[in-house]
Amino acid sequence: MTYTLRSALIPVEDGYATVDVQIEGDRIAAIGAGLPTVGTAIDAENKLLLPGFVNGHAHSVQFWQRGLIPQLPLELWLADVMDTSPTALEQTYLGALGTAIGTLLSGGTCVMDHLYVIAGHEVESVAAAARAYKEIGIRAFIAPLIQDMPFVAGYPEGLKTLPHQPYQQSTADILALMETIVTELHEPEAGIQIAVGPTGFHRCTDALFEGCRDLSDRHNLCRHIHLLETRSQKMLAQERYGGSAVKHLQEIGFLDHRTSLAHSIWLDDADIAILAETKSTVVHNALSNLRLGSGIAPVLKYLAAGVNVAFGCDGAASNDGQDLLEAIKIGSLLHNVTDPDYKHWITPRKAVEMAAIGGFTGVNLADQVGSLTVGKQADLVLYDLKNLSLLPRTDPIKLLVLGRPNAAVDSVWVRGKRVIADGTIQTVEVDRFSQTVFNYSKGYSKPQYKTIHQVEAHYRRVMGLTECGDSVVD
Amino acid sequence: MTYTLRSALIPVEDGYATVDVQIEGDRIAAIGAGLPTVGTAIDAENKLLLPGFVNGHAHSVQFWQRGLIPQLPLELWLADVMDTSPTALEQTYLGALGTAIGTLLSGGTCVMDHLYVIAGHEVESVAAAARAYKEIGIRAFIAPLIQDMPFVAGYPEGLKTLPHQPYQQSTADILALMETIVTELHEPEAGIQIAVGPTGFHRCTDALFEGCRDLSDRHNLCRHIHLLETRSQKMLAQERYGGSAVKHLQEIGFLDHRTSLAHSIWLDDADIAILAETKSTVVHNALSNLRLGSGIAPVLKYLAAGVNVAFGCDGAASNDGQDLLEAIKIGSLLHNVTDPDYKHWITPRKAVEMAAIGGFTGVNLADQVGSLTVGKQADLVLYDLKNLSLLPRTDPIKLLVLGRPNAAVDSVWVRGKRVIADGTIQTVEVDRFSQTVFNYSKGYSKPQYKTIHQVEAHYRRVMGLTECGDSVVD
Repeated sequence: MTYTLRSALIPVEDGYATVDVQIEGDRIAAIGAGLPTVGTAIDAENKLLLPGFVNGHAHSVQFWQRGLIPQLPLELWLADVMDTSPTALEQTYLGALGTAIGTLLSGGTCVMDHLYVIAGHEVESVAAAARAYKEIGIRAFIAPLIQDMPFVAGYPEGLKTLPHQPYQQSTADILALMETIVTELHEPEAGIQIAVGPTGFHRCTDALFEGCRDLSDRHNLCRHIHLLETRSQKMLAQERYGGSAVKHLQEIGFLDHRTSLAHSIWLDDADIAILAETKSTVVHNALSNLRLGSGIAPVLKYLAAGVNVAFGCDGAASNDGQDLLEAIKIGSLLHNVTDPDYKHWITPRKAVEMAAIGGFTGVNLADQVGSLTVGKQADLVLYDLKNLSLLPRTDPIKLLVLGRPNAAVDSVWVRGKRVIADGTIQTVEVDRFSQTVFNYSKGYSKPQYKTIHQVEAHYRRVMGLTECGDSVVD
Repeated sequence: MTYTLRSALIPVEDGYATVDVQIEGDRIAAIGAGLPTVGTAIDAENKLLLPGFVNGHAHSVQFWQRGLIPQLPLELWLADVMDTSPTALEQTYLGALGTAIGTLLSGGTCVMDHLYVIAGHEVESVAAAARAYKEIGIRAFIAPLIQDMPFVAGYPEGLKTLPHQPYQQSTADILALMETIVTELHEPEAGIQIAVGPTGFHRCTDALFEGCRDLSDRHNLCRHIHLLETRSQKMLAQERYGGSAVKHLQEIGFLDHRTSLAHSIWLDDADIAILAETKSTVVHNALSNLRLGSGIAPVLKYLAAGVNVAFGCDGAASNDGQDLLEAIKIGSLLHNVTDPDYKHWITPRKAVEMAAIGGFTGVNLADQVGSLTVGKQADLVLYDLKNLSLLPRTDPIKLLVLGRPNAAVDSVWVRGKRVIADGTIQTVEVDRFSQTVFNYSKGYSKPQYKTIHQVEAHYRRVMGLTECGDSVVD
């Protein structure tokens, strides 16, 4: 399809300009004033045109767990998440659809899905998510979340203190499964890529990292992990490696320009230098980090050191909202309280750059998409500047990022295909989707959590928290 | 009017219950299962019923400045705000309307408007805001923002270093104006109350505070000020009083159960004890505090000490969004990173209580409104649990507070009058309002800020920031 966007507002160096934009096939064909109309004319007057953003870290299956899990730190929250994780492939499909809907309606055209897979149905799980992403038409990276150490390995002193079984699958079996998934489902030309996604050093052996590294090298796959999300994980790195987890990951060759690191909160200056040196990307998930009390990632230090930073929503069990604009807003404002010098604060324009080209740098596509550049793939979003939430007409990017847009996305193109028009998703019937989700979930009753009771006393002891008492249940 | 809400979900101690609710006149007449239908029947099945929230701190005129002001700390941001503050009474009226729309559509039924008044038109300014609030039907407290010291008094070493004129009005003239405003516009029986609103100790003399205190005592008015929003203000208190601003306010008798204190970030334990002792209320404006880099208010300490805490949006120049649910979400989650013990974190149910009964406690109305109690005034909000942003059906209050509701408010009653039905405001045409605002603002051009250049070097010096360079302009 061919489109001409007439009179769109775009950011330029010293303000804004009104331009026409031609989309031909999957590319931006021309940007300029007074272009001839080719293909379908789109009235973009009083609309702001920006490149699509990347939702750099998601767990789509957690769609089913939003509004569910109590206020807990990661290590205990995860116990509750595991106890209530959906087990039907249909829910994997619907969860991916829900995640894509949230991302598209908040300015995202690409998602990195660190996907929970159903044990024994790993390939089918990835296929279900891929089917959802293709149907709705979002660009997606699917990194099946894998580990080869038991759950208790994620706690300081966990392996030596807490009862456990060996992990149910061998490292070799997991890597063989990943090879199958790549062979069957990696389709870059269809906008669906498989990435390697060991959950993080806290539950993965070096052998798993090395196997993933080699798989990534053979197929040019992105690499995506959780990194030092909590103070507990930093303690665990000290226990396991006698020092820095970041240095260890560098030594085993896992960090490179295709590697994105979710959270990255508990890093020191030497760690930060390694991220800059290896050209790794940090994915900042501020809302999740607040929800779980994980801490505030040192994002201003990353930017000062030249580390690429992108934004993510994280899964809906730790960010029940799943709005990318909200993740960008809080992910940029939060740091103002960490540095008294406002000259270092993230401006809304910088935040938009981080979300767009920063996001696509993190998935190794910055040369092909992520900016309003002729010849790049057309991942584009039009925001309606007559929407009340973007009024009055002051600085549109400031209000988009610092405000609270309500249904302000008018149109979205992904790889040149129009996925949203007049605020409505064109490829999937959202009302029907909502009804399906409602029907699925209306028999809800409060879960009976079990796993947390096996680990809470240990967690409180190693973290130096006082007497245990009852678990938080609300 | 009389209403019966059929099959509404309400929170009860150990979960939720489905009940019918009768509203008669301005009161909640009955709550129970299987009540007879009186008056208009409202289908409340799959809807959550909560008491209305209070937007405990607003500056409605800043509606015109959202998306406008660069990323700056309060002391420099305020210079830009003053340079661009609207000067037409029509804008005062529309700004109040815009603030009320935002509050109502995000669960609020009451606003405390710390109102910027137009010099020379103080009474008309308050009348314009009161007219807007009456028309739309929100409950409002209007505290005209007053000061009797010059702008530079707000900076450490400001009065002795920076050039300035005496403040343009005498303390006596200001207090006389306040008396007129109270006489003409204080109408508690119409849902509109005047409050006394000296901006804060940083730009007000003891004489102004004492005059406001006496006015408050004579007419039983609420008292509302900014308190220790920034580190700079704490330094200023040391300079001016040789110690605590809170202790000073207590000594001059300004703190009581009718006093609400916006921000209250830089307080120590002795100050917190004074707030508890005087039964003052803290209004927490987390989004504004992040936007201006003011700091994180010690809200968990307030709660532990028994201080009442409510939530506010603050003005749109420092919280460009103006969504009360977002202010509640971030205002409760933010503190998880300040205390490693999750047992102290604010649960969503606690947040809802703070927003409702906590808010009404702060405006001295807790005995009349703020909870689902038979006999209380009917300030009620129904949330649509089939709205996609509140799906799947897990824990509705958790998802409402921790999620990102989009147009999830179905109905609102204020003092028994239905102001929102089927998601649409009934009293004001919002589309026409949006068009009016658009027309007003479409000739926008980037402001030329002046005042900041007179104070920035001084600010950086007293705050210990290094070389000045250019002001932030984006």
